[in-house]
Amino acid sequence: MEKQQAQKTVVVVGAGFGGLQVARRLRNAPFKVVLVDRRNYHLFQPLLYQVATAGISPSEIAHPVRAILRGQKNLAFRLAEVQGVDFAARQLRTSTGLVEYDYLVLAIGSQTSYFGMQNVARHSFGLKDITEASAIRNHVLRQFELASQEPDPVMRRARLTFAIVGGGPTGVEAAGALSELARLVLLKDFPSISPTEVRVLLLEASSSILGGFPEDLRVVAAEILWRKHVELRFGAAVQDYDGEQITLNGGEVIPARTMIWAAGVRAESLVDTLGVSQGKQGRVIVQTTLQLPDHPEVFVIGDAAYLEEDGEPLPMMAPVAVQQAKVVVQNLIRLEAGQPLCLFDFQDPGSLATIGRNAAVARLGKLHFHGFLAWVLWLFIHLMQLVGFRNRLLVLINWAWDYFFYDRAVRIIEK
Amino acid sequence: MEKQQAQKTVVVVGAGFGGLQVARRLRNAPFKVVLVDRRNYHLFQPLLYQVATAGISPSEIAHPVRAILRGQKNLAFRLAEVQGVDFAARQLRTSTGLVEYDYLVLAIGSQTSYFGMQNVARHSFGLKDITEASAIRNHVLRQFELASQEPDPVMRRARLTFAIVGGGPTGVEAAGALSELARLVLLKDFPSISPTEVRVLLLEASSSILGGFPEDLRVVAAEILWRKHVELRFGAAVQDYDGEQITLNGGEVIPARTMIWAAGVRAESLVDTLGVSQGKQGRVIVQTTLQLPDHPEVFVIGDAAYLEEDGEPLPMMAPVAVQQAKVVVQNLIRLEAGQPLCLFDFQDPGSLATIGRNAAVARLGKLHFHGFLAWVLWLFIHLMQLVGFRNRLLVLINWAWDYFFYDRAVRIIEK
Repeated sequence: MEKQQAQKTVVVVGAGFGGLQVARRLRNAPFKVVLVDRRNYHLFQPLLYQVATAGISPSEIAHPVRAILRGQKNLAFRLAEVQGVDFAARQLRTSTGLVEYDYLVLAIGSQTSYFGMQNVARHSFGLKDITEASAIRNHVLRQFELASQEPDPVMRRARLTFAIVGGGPTGVEAAGALSELARLVLLKDFPSISPTEVRVLLLEASSSILGGFPEDLRVVAAEILWRKHVELRFGAAVQDYDGEQITLNGGEVIPARTMIWAAGVRAESLVDTLGVSQGKQGRVIVQTTLQLPDHPEVFVIGDAAYLEEDGEPLPMMAPVAVQQAKVVVQNLIRLEAGQPLCLFDFQDPGSLATIGRNAAVARLGKLHFHGFLAWVLWLFIHLMQLVGFRNRLLVLINWAWDYFFYDRAVRIIEK
Repeated sequence: MEKQQAQKTVVVVGAGFGGLQVARRLRNAPFKVVLVDRRNYHLFQPLLYQVATAGISPSEIAHPVRAILRGQKNLAFRLAEVQGVDFAARQLRTSTGLVEYDYLVLAIGSQTSYFGMQNVARHSFGLKDITEASAIRNHVLRQFELASQEPDPVMRRARLTFAIVGGGPTGVEAAGALSELARLVLLKDFPSISPTEVRVLLLEASSSILGGFPEDLRVVAAEILWRKHVELRFGAAVQDYDGEQITLNGGEVIPARTMIWAAGVRAESLVDTLGVSQGKQGRVIVQTTLQLPDHPEVFVIGDAAYLEEDGEPLPMMAPVAVQQAKVVVQNLIRLEAGQPLCLFDFQDPGSLATIGRNAAVARLGKLHFHGFLAWVLWLFIHLMQLVGFRNRLLVLINWAWDYFFYDRAVRIIEK
């Protein structure tokens, strides 16, 4: 990658919400921009659980980066896995060679954390990328197929017991959607399976779900989950899982052939190789300008960055990354101009979680609401954020179809 | 699977065009029907090349068998791989145990044949199922990504050379679609790649493509492929491929990192274990009643069955399987009633092949036509045959989008 004499190179690592936003906002800035990602697509993670529960196709939430950024003259995309950063030499070591930078923006996101529980890591499913989501779909559908051929009632129940661990938004959304997939769709497909044989459990270690939400919405969400036949278990910390039995902290054992792990997230493990200070969940400690303390030419944003506001770490969610991207772009321009840098201040837009058909909980500023209206809001907001009109149209059709016909089109086992 | 005293069990193996048709037509027949397939979906194979060339999503041509047959009271679906048939005991050995039958219909289809060339089998891509089609898509897109980062011009060309082997309908359709994907879509995505660096080759061992079509359409098809920048090579029989170089029979060597093998098909290898007489391409020789000569309770249809008409083996295509399914169902009912059986007589509906946007060749009875009209006919026929209104709608939207915007939405590399 030759460097033009006049223009410096900004290398952005990660084409998630943060990195993509940085790349786009640098469109008219006097920089050469190189966007590096190990995947050739931007993934709309908030709908990943819908891929896992056979509601939509992977390609409907995965949009090619080159399509998104087509026509941006100062940008080059590079498909590569970043293996390390040499801060002194200002270069990245990647799977396809070295990449030099003048400024670096790390927007590398987060990965599933199993808190060192190797058995759990081996036997449960994460829900962070398309491969994992497709694996859940294939596995869940296969359990129904195998159960329908299984004469032993104990084994049938084990195959038809689906445990989701972690009562955050991902766990709640996955549990609601999985319960509806089982009850509204699969029981019709499998007349030989009785509703009394199917269990969907949501295991939460603390005493409430949706920790980031206000108390009243947490109570409502729990109530809605119950109504949708999700067995909600509080104080249920998973200690072990061998693929057949879940062991909880109190010694309770639950036979289940499926466990989805949505209980822990940490910064992408690449950050551990950087030799920089890390905060909770391995996140890289940054200044309020989003720079690394010792490397003012390096910015870290999104899930991978650790910054506190009012004594609390910023949540790992898209709005933080997107807002930080704006500040990074301003600061890159200001650094070049020798101006003082902007400080990041998070404007919380609220929180939203859906719990299957017709139900969601939402907090917008001081407003709390739930039920059908919150659900329509959720639909609308997520549809509008999807990249590309075609994806919006396809997802809308899929949602409308599922809604009116109690169907899930993508219930195919691919391997 | 308990047998009712009054009703005999028909086991149908394979949920392709033939098997699905048999299962459906037995809806009101006095049989218990068990449909066995190793996949939980019916695959619309004629559009598989569109998955391989990033035009549509796998789930748009894969429809869950249970959804198709929902509500058919006398039918049970069983997800299992058939490993062998015990004709004497009238039972199937499967990956999930034994399945007993009174009547058996084998509609197990065909698989790629590499004519014993192990190197070719190892390094090239078949195009018979969703896994293979997705693998081609991922691989082709990755070659463009790697070429764009590659400084060595010789290596760039090798990565940007795509060879399709075999000039039958699959090869012709794949070559046309791949050339358009490269020229109309990917060259826009990769401004650093020049059109002069990209080659799409169609290697045909004989002196004409589309062997089953009339002479005039074969000439037209070749002309259209040329216009679409497909390098059409006649008398080019592949002798070896190591993943980097293709060796042709004359000693010519073509550096290419991609080879798609559409030159050979044979009956599914399960037929080799049956101990029955096989004709060309390993197909099982059946009587005109579609029964096995020595086992009147066993029927074989579709690609897996060998039957001649006017001295020629019936082609391996969906219309044969669908028409045979009708005869099998009639004969099952007649066997039970002690009536004389029907004989199969193929009614050729014609042939259709598409060669990218706006172009196709079609033979309908004595009519031959080509160009835009043939292409619209092709679109219409394929759309109407897709299972499920939703799939038709989604595929139509994708096609319309690609058509108007010269785009391909599904160009994501999944692994």
